Amino acid sequence: MEYFSNIKWRAISLTFCIVLSFPHGSSGEIPPKPTGSVTVLPPIKPNDGPQAFPDAEKENLPVFTMDYPRIQIPFEITLWVLLASFAKIGFHVYHKITVWVPESCLLISIGLIVGAIMHSVHEEPPAVLTSNVFFLYMLPPIVLDSGYFMPIRPFFENVGTVLWFAVVGTLWNSIGIGMSLFAICQIEAFGVQDINLQENLLFATIISAVDPVAVLSVFEDVSVNEQLYIVVFGECLFNDAVTVVLYNMFNFVAEMPVVEPVDVFLGVARFFVVGLGGMGFGVLFGFAAAFTTRFTANVREIEPLFIFMYSYLAYLVAELFAISSIMAIVTCALTMKYYVEENVSQRSCTTIRHVIKMLGSISETLIFFFLGVVTITTEHEWNWGYILFTLLFAFVWRGLGVLVLTQIINPFRTIPFNLKDQFGLGYGGLRGAISFALAFTLPDNIGRRQLFITATIAIIIFTVFIQGISIRPLIEFINVRRTNRNLGTINVEVHCRLMEHTIAGIEDLCGQWSHYYWKDNLLFLLPFVQSACQHMTLYSYFNTHFTVAPWSFS
Amino acid sequence: MEYFSNIKWRAISLTFCIVLSFPHGSSGEIPPKPTGSVTVLPPIKPNDGPQAFPDAEKENLPVFTMDYPRIQIPFEITLWVLLASFAKIGFHVYHKITVWVPESCLLISIGLIVGAIMHSVHEEPPAVLTSNVFFLYMLPPIVLDSGYFMPIRPFFENVGTVLWFAVVGTLWNSIGIGMSLFAICQIEAFGVQDINLQENLLFATIISAVDPVAVLSVFEDVSVNEQLYIVVFGECLFNDAVTVVLYNMFNFVAEMPVVEPVDVFLGVARFFVVGLGGMGFGVLFGFAAAFTTRFTANVREIEPLFIFMYSYLAYLVAELFAISSIMAIVTCALTMKYYVEENVSQRSCTTIRHVIKMLGSISETLIFFFLGVVTITTEHEWNWGYILFTLLFAFVWRGLGVLVLTQIINPFRTIPFNLKDQFGLGYGGLRGAISFALAFTLPDNIGRRQLFITATIAIIIFTVFIQGISIRPLIEFINVRRTNRNLGTINVEVHCRLMEHTIAGIEDLCGQWSHYYWKDNLLFLLPFVQSACQHMTLYSYFNTHFTVAPWSFS
Repeated sequence: MEYFSNIKWRAISLTFCIVLSFPHGSSGEIPPKPTGSVTVLPPIKPNDGPQAFPDAEKENLPVFTMDYPRIQIPFEITLWVLLASFAKIGFHVYHKITVWVPESCLLISIGLIVGAIMHSVHEEPPAVLTSNVFFLYMLPPIVLDSGYFMPIRPFFENVGTVLWFAVVGTLWNSIGIGMSLFAICQIEAFGVQDINLQENLLFATIISAVDPVAVLSVFEDVSVNEQLYIVVFGECLFNDAVTVVLYNMFNFVAEMPVVEPVDVFLGVARFFVVGLGGMGFGVLFGFAAAFTTRFTANVREIEPLFIFMYSYLAYLVAELFAISSIMAIVTCALTMKYYVEENVSQRSCTTIRHVIKMLGSISETLIFFFLGVVTITTEHEWNWGYILFTLLFAFVWRGLGVLVLTQIINPFRTIPFNLKDQFGLGYGGLRGAISFALAFTLPDNIGRRQLFITATIAIIIFTVFIQGISIRPLIEFINVRRTNRNLGTINVEVHCRLMEHTIAGIEDLCGQWSHYYWKDNLLFLLPFVQSACQHMTLYSYFNTHFTVAPWSFS
Repeated sequence: MEYFSNIKWRAISLTFCIVLSFPHGSSGEIPPKPTGSVTVLPPIKPNDGPQAFPDAEKENLPVFTMDYPRIQIPFEITLWVLLASFAKIGFHVYHKITVWVPESCLLISIGLIVGAIMHSVHEEPPAVLTSNVFFLYMLPPIVLDSGYFMPIRPFFENVGTVLWFAVVGTLWNSIGIGMSLFAICQIEAFGVQDINLQENLLFATIISAVDPVAVLSVFEDVSVNEQLYIVVFGECLFNDAVTVVLYNMFNFVAEMPVVEPVDVFLGVARFFVVGLGGMGFGVLFGFAAAFTTRFTANVREIEPLFIFMYSYLAYLVAELFAISSIMAIVTCALTMKYYVEENVSQRSCTTIRHVIKMLGSISETLIFFFLGVVTITTEHEWNWGYILFTLLFAFVWRGLGVLVLTQIINPFRTIPFNLKDQFGLGYGGLRGAISFALAFTLPDNIGRRQLFITATIAIIIFTVFIQGISIRPLIEFINVRRTNRNLGTINVEVHCRLMEHTIAGIEDLCGQWSHYYWKDNLLFLLPFVQSACQHMTLYSYFNTHFTVAPWSFS
């Protein structure tokens, strides 16, 4: 098939060039001009159309017309998505590349190239990462994907560790990096003395949050043990609450010369509002989705819509109240998944999973792609000292934080983290597009805003490329405990579930309650959220649980 | 389960009221104000939040904040979609209603109620049907749904009749209704003497096009024979080419006092450009989609995306060049369906079909819903004479047209249409939202624009309600030939396909070629558009063809 493989490459390159040529003449987000007509232009001199009797004075019915501004927005969105999809196909043609270089790096590289092309023709890229588009349209699918396919049992078994790292770890990183950078700022040689403590803390908050998009794209290929995976993964989803509060707080405080104790107290109160509020909305909408799907037996074709609408509503309502939207949507997905998959038809279930994966995948692709594009097209302000020390401190404080926090949490864990696991935890803390978008939303009154943006990009590129590429060989080299990726057989699943119910029953008898009891007894909610015709038959059990292999979606 | 059924109703009503209360304070399409911050408001006096030490002079860190404009657009879109989905669920709870009253009527009724509520609180509804939103976002999913699930064999067996009715029938209706209305305008008593011939023809073009959305929603419930269904269905998809050309032409000509012969010639030329151009783009993008899916073996999760992207691109490119976008997207779907379903994974195939059905369903629901809403909220200009004669002429000319055209086409048909079929053809010509949207895009220089809008709404409401509700009992009363809806068994399918191949072979030998020959020989394209690993095994044959039951999607 060599002949076809050549044709294939030529076709792909040709299409690539064609679609690259389209965005010329566009200018980002322009609301469509209401033209007032469907398919009719105001009569124009048909300069390029055929005319039977060319007559310079009289206008004839135009045969060929063109109206680009009308379709500009959906057209450009479609082209960008197609371009990103072609890039994904292209990577997987040479499978050996993606074994060693994470897809995120490849996408950023393609983005850099496209950004260079756009910059050279003085074209502005669409404002995707630098506006609400990122937080309202691009981030929710990825987080929904993470939350919906989160392996539930390992998550709840490690929930304490996850929250410990998410909350305390992020605080540690933010304050540590912020203070160290402030100390560096005092050194005259670097020329950044105008950055005060609050601004440093604000910047440190932005870059200390581990990013779910980046982590996912790397850790999916590296088969570490579940404990490690779930802690890093859970941490990057749940640190959003802390990031939101700290960002608010330092932003607010950056404009005030004096910080009062009451503000610290209010900050702590706000943390609980943000965290618990996010979870609360998530659970609320999750149960609403479960309840609604009780009644969708006659409208099977729109069943998947409810899942997407409710989870998106949870996200938006959380954004409305400025609480943690990531936690809201993750909690919503976790809550509704079980009940919804019992209620909807098999086809809807397949569709829901596939669409969530599809949207998450394409969002992630676009985010890394545009990260590359805006790296070139943004105005940079480079400062060697500040940026190099940012990289250093981010690395050092992450490592220290993991060491210290693991020492404290290990006695409480069933499976303690050894040093190799801790290396994986620390080294796997990648930064990504959330940091970049947050940097871009810094208020304009911060003097060194451009420097912060440049430093954020630097740390993202560094972690994604250097850490992202090297983590796989390093993990294999130091021989971190790996996962056993075999799908559970039916027997294993049945027996595991049998044991869980037995343990729950025994706990009931003894009066000693652990998480098995609570899991079993949340089933009391089932009549409210499950349609009468669906019940836990052996068939539906197999359908739901056997096919939910923890790590694979194929 | 009486208790739960009560709870269910209370819950549904409560949710209905909650979601109805949300759009207050909104104002249609406002581009999001770039607030410049993610989750932080400019510090406001937290009037409604808790404060530890209330101090009127100093601002403290706000604990509760709200930022609605930022999320307004996605939030309102989500709520409207949810509301429409709840309405759909509600209808199917009382299954007996939907047996006799088509869903379209119920949705318009709900829309009328919501429109009345919005009007009473002086709220503007979102500009959904009255702007590009309809043609760029709401219509494509429905037409893709129609095209993708179009029964191919019956369609190609009747393609001549379909095009005959679509082209000549629409011409007949437009010119007939236009002339008659112009004659009516001459009567002084009606007070519409200012409407000239071109404006009447323009208006007649708008209302003579049979609407796929309305027809589908009615004919799906009424099980008429395939011939009848496919002709009405095909007609309403393919008359778009004629509508586009006539609309352009009369719009252009409405501003010119003199119509030259060259313009008529250009009009005919334009018709071919529009029709063949639409088909050409459709076929091009269809093959592009088929070609692309050859290479998606490693990126299964984004396979469905290509189908949607390519068909949407076909639609947009056709809109760009002001040619028939409906024909483009239908042809694209028809072309790519076979090849794509061979190339993609089973899961992707299920997802594609379900998502297309889902998007089409929700679009259709929203369209009828908003049709009801804008009926109340639009400014009307009523004229008894003009509107009543519009209804009369639309009905009469449709009936006459069907009679005359059937007489001419029947000798060429294998299964001629009897009088009962002709009744079904004529009576099933419903108008819908496309007419409304076209009416709204009439240029402002037409003096009686409001009257035209009102008359269009009147004819839509009349056909959808009166004809839509009565067609089922009438069809049963006069005993139109019904369809045999049993799914073909495997044996039937295998033998049918065997016969087709045999006939194609015999034709090859005899030298007499009919459509069997061409169908068989388009398989020469297969190596280019089919991945090497997929070939026509018995398994894949059953997978594809057996599950494509002509009428059902369950």
